[in-house]
Amino acid sequence: MTLAEIARALGFELRGDGSVEIAGVAPLESATPGTISFLGDRRLAHLLATTRASAVILPPEAPDPTMPTLRAHHPYLAFVGVVELLHPPKRSARPGVHPTAVVAPSARIGARASIGPHATVGERTTIGADAVLHAGVAIYEDVTIGDGLTAHANAVVREGVRLGDRVTLHAGSVIGSDGFGYLPLPDGNKKIPQVGTVVLEDDVEIGACATVDRAALGATVVGRGTKIDNLVMIGHGCRIGEHCLLAGQAGLAGGTKLGSRVMLGGQAGSAGHLTIGDGVQVGAQAGMHRDIAAGTVVSGYPAMEARTWRRVIMTFPRLPEVFRRLRRLERALGIGRGEGDEEPEPR
Amino acid sequence: MTLAEIARALGFELRGDGSVEIAGVAPLESATPGTISFLGDRRLAHLLATTRASAVILPPEAPDPTMPTLRAHHPYLAFVGVVELLHPPKRSARPGVHPTAVVAPSARIGARASIGPHATVGERTTIGADAVLHAGVAIYEDVTIGDGLTAHANAVVREGVRLGDRVTLHAGSVIGSDGFGYLPLPDGNKKIPQVGTVVLEDDVEIGACATVDRAALGATVVGRGTKIDNLVMIGHGCRIGEHCLLAGQAGLAGGTKLGSRVMLGGQAGSAGHLTIGDGVQVGAQAGMHRDIAAGTVVSGYPAMEARTWRRVIMTFPRLPEVFRRLRRLERALGIGRGEGDEEPEPR
Amino acid sequence: MTLAEIARALGFELRGDGSVEIAGVAPLESATPGTISFLGDRRLAHLLATTRASAVILPPEAPDPTMPTLRAHHPYLAFVGVVELLHPPKRSARPGVHPTAVVAPSARIGARASIGPHATVGERTTIGADAVLHAGVAIYEDVTIGDGLTAHANAVVREGVRLGDRVTLHAGSVIGSDGFGYLPLPDGNKKIPQVGTVVLEDDVEIGACATVDRAALGATVVGRGTKIDNLVMIGHGCRIGEHCLLAGQAGLAGGTKLGSRVMLGGQAGSAGHLTIGDGVQVGAQAGMHRDIAAGTVVSGYPAMEARTWRRVIMTFPRLPEVFRRLRRLERALGIGRGEGDEEPEPR
Repeated sequence: MTLAEIARALGFELRGDGSVEIAGVAPLESATPGTISFLGDRRLAHLLATTRASAVILPPEAPDPTMPTLRAHHPYLAFVGVVELLHPPKRSARPGVHPTAVVAPSARIGARASIGPHATVGERTTIGADAVLHAGVAIYEDVTIGDGLTAHANAVVREGVRLGDRVTLHAGSVIGSDGFGYLPLPDGNKKIPQVGTVVLEDDVEIGACATVDRAALGATVVGRGTKIDNLVMIGHGCRIGEHCLLAGQAGLAGGTKLGSRVMLGGQAGSAGHLTIGDGVQVGAQAGMHRDIAAGTVVSGYPAMEARTWRRVIMTFPRLPEVFRRLRRLERALGIGRGEGDEEPEPR
Repeated sequence: MTLAEIARALGFELRGDGSVEIAGVAPLESATPGTISFLGDRRLAHLLATTRASAVILPPEAPDPTMPTLRAHHPYLAFVGVVELLHPPKRSARPGVHPTAVVAPSARIGARASIGPHATVGERTTIGADAVLHAGVAIYEDVTIGDGLTAHANAVVREGVRLGDRVTLHAGSVIGSDGFGYLPLPDGNKKIPQVGTVVLEDDVEIGACATVDRAALGATVVGRGTKIDNLVMIGHGCRIGEHCLLAGQAGLAGGTKLGSRVMLGGQAGSAGHLTIGDGVQVGAQAGMHRDIAAGTVVSGYPAMEARTWRRVIMTFPRLPEVFRRLRRLERALGIGRGEGDEEPEPR
Repeated sequence: MTLAEIARALGFELRGDGSVEIAGVAPLESATPGTISFLGDRRLAHLLATTRASAVILPPEAPDPTMPTLRAHHPYLAFVGVVELLHPPKRSARPGVHPTAVVAPSARIGARASIGPHATVGERTTIGADAVLHAGVAIYEDVTIGDGLTAHANAVVREGVRLGDRVTLHAGSVIGSDGFGYLPLPDGNKKIPQVGTVVLEDDVEIGACATVDRAALGATVVGRGTKIDNLVMIGHGCRIGEHCLLAGQAGLAGGTKLGSRVMLGGQAGSAGHLTIGDGVQVGAQAGMHRDIAAGTVVSGYPAMEARTWRRVIMTFPRLPEVFRRLRRLERALGIGRGEGDEEPEPR
């Protein structure tokens, strides 16, 4: 495709030679001739002098570099458009039910759906149009799924779960497993039946080997447009708002509520039954142990305002020094050590 | 079902109108007419005035609210009984071996077992009565399994593993994967053969995508009645006692011993070869790096007595202030800063 | 096998009675008659007096205990040799394609490969000689795999991924799932197409339910000989060097580079786009948030030199005391509390 063709297809302004052939996309640092790149962050503008990219996407006001450019107000978003143009999603899955798939007689499958080898669909389950179930996907009975499902190999959806439109389940993910609820009694742990369900709203994406547990009663809900990364654990009865982003290995204990557009860093975790407000941003590995007000940016273990936590951790390497300085001051004043201070000082 | 019928079926005392129809169960806050709820915690007694539940389970000594009640000494346990009564476990799995399942000729399967579509059972494996293997479950060769197994879709049991009676494996769990043992040598990491096995005793439950590794030698053991949540990792050679509860994403490095009735919070982790005593309770995300005596309640990173940790973390946001106050004291006494204190103070 | 036969097979020096029969291997503490053990750590030499092992592997210079010995400079490595000799890997998988497997017409499978029940191999995928695919393994289209692959049950390899020789994928692992990349826009999270791939070089081993995401552009690379434990998450675009060891539940955010022979403890995590030098050792649960120079040993949250962190955590339980001592000093000097210090002191 030529640069001019790309500009025309996506409606971007072209400056310079539109006849250059563009075969691929790349970041500025690793671009090679024949690729197009973009400037997402002005602090990287110096890379324009050295990149080997054949064309670059820039904001309209940026000065012309040596190579031809496309102009867009959000260069990263424009770049994503080019990626989509040059790498259109391959639909390798053919419509139809593979002869090795096992679809229950009472299940209903929408138009153009592709049910791959060894996939199973339980009794009374309905799946909308254009679904793609890859190899080994197991959908239990009484499940309701909207249009446009993509379920990668060996994903599992347990009985009675409800999925909206355009849901993506990555390989090995498990939706609707029993919540972890037990009453510890003298003769052992009594299982609390988990008779609720899970609802994944439209455009939800669930990462590989991530698990979303069914509620004990009612439903665990993941709101529209929320994206959940690999190996994340959503406990029973959680309610997650719209357009949240939960990074890899994050975990929510049972009953926690997230507002909309909440962002959790990798390995972050919450205690149960918390309320995390709209737009909260949580740093990687942070430990949420109480409610967090909307708009707050938190980090740390335990989680606190990120600004505070940054100052706290700057003190950590200096903590041993504190005891030396206290001792010196006490000696200068002839103050003995107080009650409860009898153990040897940390060095 | 009427309230009176429930009272009769479960042997609870009924007070008030037994003719009300009960169609479901719900927590006090979200109950609707036609549901029964319970008071599990006296601090929530104020909710009795506003709940819309048609009936409530209370301890015998509690005053009568406006709606009819059932009386039980352990209202939560009684509520679980009602849940079980109103939501009897559906056994959708039909006895028999699905035609797409692959069962080795030398495998032995007990009475009334249900071997689902695309399940596989290896040579010389024995599975007891009433087992339910859902779609895609893979049991390798030489496995021994007691009665009443439930294995959800795509669970995997590796060769030679031994499972007791009434074990539940949730979807995607893996029992008996190789332990992570290598000798780092000059030319790379030499794998230490993992020729041991895994033993899951009676009534063990393993969460979705949780993994229990086989021992290098001998066996990794999970004791009777222990319940393990999703995405938990049990390293090779661990020995876990009876009736423990391990919450989501917790991890035990190799060779660690847990006593009985130990409770691990979510994302808690232990170093290898530790001994954690009976009844120890470990907070979420805690990091165990040494042995913990029976009965101790620990939290934090590193794990320490929870009481101590709570006081420690209260100081964290105040740590920057410590340096200001030290400086002020030193100035007042004309004390310069000491050796090793030369770096700029944290702000 | 007699001890003399073992000595001869592996080329070790024998001292004492070579006619004893050796049926198994065991650690010194739990050895029984008929087993052989080894002394891996001189601090455990006292166990030689009480072990019930019938023979022991010792370094050449160690004094003779009461039982016969084999002598080797690296007794643990020698022991591993004996384990391999007594427990030769069983190849239970028969060469050939199981009748329930689904192999695309254009796929090419090498000599002696075993494609198990319900395994699937996509179009244009090539798999080398001697591969073993266990039940339910799903290999998508356009995948290239070298010789000697072992893929345990229900492992998944997504389209276009490239694997070297002798790669091992444990059960439920997922290679090549989409990276977690979105542009948060006013109307939701725009998915950034993940059109890159994953390369696993020779002799890489991936643990059960571990996930390695494909790059947005280019490739996520795991270097030769690197071993990755269960439930580990490798973000898109990471580049991991040779012979690294990543323990269970560790996680790398996108774009992070690890040198060679890096060791990550369990549940350790890194922020994105970091550079971790050769030979770095990272403690369990450590949180890497900036680059780490080659050869450094780090621990803690946030990660710092392990020596520093050990001294820091010794101060934690004493932090409440710091405030009492500051107060006492200030009172002695008649200093009031300063600005910003108005909140009540932590107790």
